[in-house]
Amino acid sequence: MRALDVVTAKRDGHELTPEQIDWFISTYSRGGEIADEQAAALAMAIFFNGMTDAELTRWTSAMIASGTTLDLSSLDRPTVDKHSTGGVGDKISLILVPLVAACGAAVPQLSGRGLGHTGGTLDKMESIAGWQPQLSPAAMVHQLEKIGAVIAGATADIAPADRKLYALRDVTGTVESIPLIASSIMSKKIAEGTDALVLDVKVGSGAFMADEARARELAAAMVRLGGHHGVATTAVLSRMDNVLGRTAGNALEVREALDVLTGGGPGDVVTLTLALAQEMLRLAGLDADPAAVLASGAAHDTFVRMVEAQGGDLTRGLPEALHRSVVTARRSGTVNAISAREVGVAAWRLGAGRARKEDPVSATAGVVCLVDVGDEVEPGQPVLELHTDDPSRLATVAALVTEAVDIADAALTPPPIVIDRID
Amino acid sequence: MRALDVVTAKRDGHELTPEQIDWFISTYSRGGEIADEQAAALAMAIFFNGMTDAELTRWTSAMIASGTTLDLSSLDRPTVDKHSTGGVGDKISLILVPLVAACGAAVPQLSGRGLGHTGGTLDKMESIAGWQPQLSPAAMVHQLEKIGAVIAGATADIAPADRKLYALRDVTGTVESIPLIASSIMSKKIAEGTDALVLDVKVGSGAFMADEARARELAAAMVRLGGHHGVATTAVLSRMDNVLGRTAGNALEVREALDVLTGGGPGDVVTLTLALAQEMLRLAGLDADPAAVLASGAAHDTFVRMVEAQGGDLTRGLPEALHRSVVTARRSGTVNAISAREVGVAAWRLGAGRARKEDPVSATAGVVCLVDVGDEVEPGQPVLELHTDDPSRLATVAALVTEAVDIADAALTPPPIVIDRID
Repeated sequence: MRALDVVTAKRDGHELTPEQIDWFISTYSRGGEIADEQAAALAMAIFFNGMTDAELTRWTSAMIASGTTLDLSSLDRPTVDKHSTGGVGDKISLILVPLVAACGAAVPQLSGRGLGHTGGTLDKMESIAGWQPQLSPAAMVHQLEKIGAVIAGATADIAPADRKLYALRDVTGTVESIPLIASSIMSKKIAEGTDALVLDVKVGSGAFMADEARARELAAAMVRLGGHHGVATTAVLSRMDNVLGRTAGNALEVREALDVLTGGGPGDVVTLTLALAQEMLRLAGLDADPAAVLASGAAHDTFVRMVEAQGGDLTRGLPEALHRSVVTARRSGTVNAISAREVGVAAWRLGAGRARKEDPVSATAGVVCLVDVGDEVEPGQPVLELHTDDPSRLATVAALVTEAVDIADAALTPPPIVIDRID
Repeated sequence: MRALDVVTAKRDGHELTPEQIDWFISTYSRGGEIADEQAAALAMAIFFNGMTDAELTRWTSAMIASGTTLDLSSLDRPTVDKHSTGGVGDKISLILVPLVAACGAAVPQLSGRGLGHTGGTLDKMESIAGWQPQLSPAAMVHQLEKIGAVIAGATADIAPADRKLYALRDVTGTVESIPLIASSIMSKKIAEGTDALVLDVKVGSGAFMADEARARELAAAMVRLGGHHGVATTAVLSRMDNVLGRTAGNALEVREALDVLTGGGPGDVVTLTLALAQEMLRLAGLDADPAAVLASGAAHDTFVRMVEAQGGDLTRGLPEALHRSVVTARRSGTVNAISAREVGVAAWRLGAGRARKEDPVSATAGVVCLVDVGDEVEPGQPVLELHTDDPSRLATVAALVTEAVDIADAALTPPPIVIDRID
C-alpha cells in the first residue's frame, strides 16, 4: 500500500477502504514509512471531503488499536465518564467525578492539559499540593473500586496514533474537522474502558465551536461512534458564551469547585453539573438523586478521598497570586455578558494557560468575575479581578478585557445553559 | 508571520496577501522555519480552494524570486521558447529548437527529465554520445549567439522554491492543481529569461490532463501569467491520445527527430512541429517559413552544431537495444488508436523512464509502432516492437500492451492533432 494512493483517494472524494485506514493509522503511528507531509495532506483532504460513517468508525477503531485499552470489567460498579469539548471556567469534572462516584458509579476520567484559552482539568488538579496525575492501570482500578472516582493523566500508550496526529493537526490547520475531532476524542475515551459516556459539547463564542449546527454535527458523530464501539453515549449541548461560574484559572477554579461541593458556588455550574450527572446516572442504570447527594456532603468526601489517594493534601490550602488588579465598569447598566473568550484569553496571558504544550502553567493566575450576568453596575465598580504572579502582565491584560464585561441599558434574559440533549 | 495562519486563511477560502505569499515561498525555499507538513497542508488547501489571478501572479513571482534569472538581453536575436506539458513520443523540442533557431530566433530551452510514463527531453538528448546537459549561463548566452539553439538542464538556482515544492507535491497528492501546475511551469520558463513562450498543452488519455476543459483552464492561466510577467505567451492545445510519431524511448526518439530534420518522419510530428514553430516565429516577430527552412536542411545543420557545441558526437551513432520482441495484431481490421498511455507505460517499464527521480534510464529501451492509425492489419501482423537491454522485462511488458493498438471493423477519421490556440 502507498500513502500517496490513500491521500489521492480521499482528495478525489472516494471512500477509504478498511484496509487503507488500518494501514495508514498503524503505519503512521509506528513512524517511518509515512511522512508527516503525507499525513498532513490526508488530514487536509479529510477537512474538505469529510468521512462517511463507516470510515469514521474504522478510523477511530484503528486509533484505539494503535495502543492499549484499559480493562475495567473486574469492577462491581457500573463505569461512566464525561468529556467536555472545552470551555472557559469549566471546572465541572472536579465536582461531577466525585458526585457521580458518590452516587454509586465508577468514573475513570483520563484527562488532558489545557492549550490556548481553555483550561485543562489536570492543570487545575495540580494546583493542589502533592497531587499526582499519573496512575498505573492497576492503581486506577484499585482506586475506582475503593472510591469510585479517578481523575488522572492518560498514559502514552492510550491511542498513541491520536497523540501523533493531534500534534500534526495542531500545526497544519487541520484541527477544525468534525471527523478528526470526533475520532480524537472518542478513541481516547473508548480506550479508557468506560461502559458509558456523556459528552458536554460546548457551543458559543468561548467554545471551540461557535456554531450550533456544527456542534450538533460533532455531537451526533461522537454519539454514533460510541454506539458503534459498544459505549452507551449521549451528548449535552451547553452554552459557552459567558464564563462558566465566576473564575477562570487553576487554583481559582479548584476553590470554586470546592464551594459547589460544600453546597455553595455559582448557579450555572451547579445546574450544568446536575444535568450531566443525571445523564451519567441514567446511562449507568443508577437511580440516585445527584442534587441530594451533593447536598449531603458525600460528593465532597469523595473528592477529598480521591485527592488524597493521589497524594494531594487540601489541608495545605490552595496557592494564591502575589498580585491582583481590578478592572472597573466604564458605565452604568446591566451586565448582559461576560465574554468567555476574552476572560479565557486574559487568564491564559496572566499565566494560567500555555501557548505550546511544553510551556509550564501558573497555579495561581487567572480571572475572578466580581459580578454576574443580570447584575446592575455603576461606573467605577470593580467587575473583574486579575490574578498573577507576574506583575508585568497586568497592564497589557487589563487593556485586553476592558470590553469583556458587556454592560447595556436593558437587561436581557440569559438563555438556559443546557441547550439540548442528543442520543 | 506564522505558517499556520497562511494555511488556515487558504483553507477558509480567503485570498492570501502578497506579504503572506512572499513570506511563505521565500521561507519555505530557504528551509527550516516552515515544516514540510505545513507546506503540504497549504498545497492541499490550494488544490481545493484554488488561487485568484492576483494570488497566482504573486505566487509565481515569489517562486522566480527564490532563485536567479537569466539575462538574455545582450543577444541580438529575439528569444522565444516552447514548453510541453508532456506526452508520449514527444520529441518535438529536438526538431523545433534548431528549426526556430535556423529561422533567426534564439531558443534558450532549459528542460527537464522524465518522470513516470512521459519522457524528458534531457533523457533523450543524453542518448547521443558525449552530449552534456549542463551549461553555465555565459556558455548558454555564447551558444545562443553563435547557433541560436540551446537545450540544457536547468541549474539548481533557477526557481529553487519550485524544485522543493514539486518534490513535496509529488508525494502528497497535490500535483494535480491548476494554479500549482501553472506556477511551477511558468516560474521556470520566466526565470529562463525568454521574451516569448509557446506552450504545447496536451489533452487526452496519454496526457497529464485527460479533460479538455481543464487543459484549457491551465493554458489560459499560463498565458495570463506570462503576460503579467512581460513574457508574450500563447498556448496550443494538442491531442495526446495516440503516441506522437511512431516511437517512445530515448535513442529511438532521437532517431525519429533526425528523420524529420532530414525531410522524413511521421506526419503528426511534422504537423505539430510546424504549428508550434509558426506560433514561436510570430511571437518573435520573424517572417520565416518554417516548412521551407526544415526542407532546406538548415534545421538539421543547426541541430548538429547545437549537439556538437555541447560535446555530442552524432557520428558515433545512436545506441540500440540488445533485445527486441514484437507484439502482433489479434484480429483483422483498421487501426483506430495506438494508446499513448499504454505505450508510454510499456516504454517506461522497458527501462526508458524512471519511477523515482534518482533512477537511471536506459538510452535504448522503448517501443516502436510498426503501424499507423488508419492502417489495415491482418491477424498475426506485427504492430509494436519492444526494445530493451533487460530481456526479463519483455514478457510482462508484452502482456501489458496487448490492447494498446485498437483495431476495429470501421475506420474512424482521426481528429486533427492541433485542437486550438489560446492567447
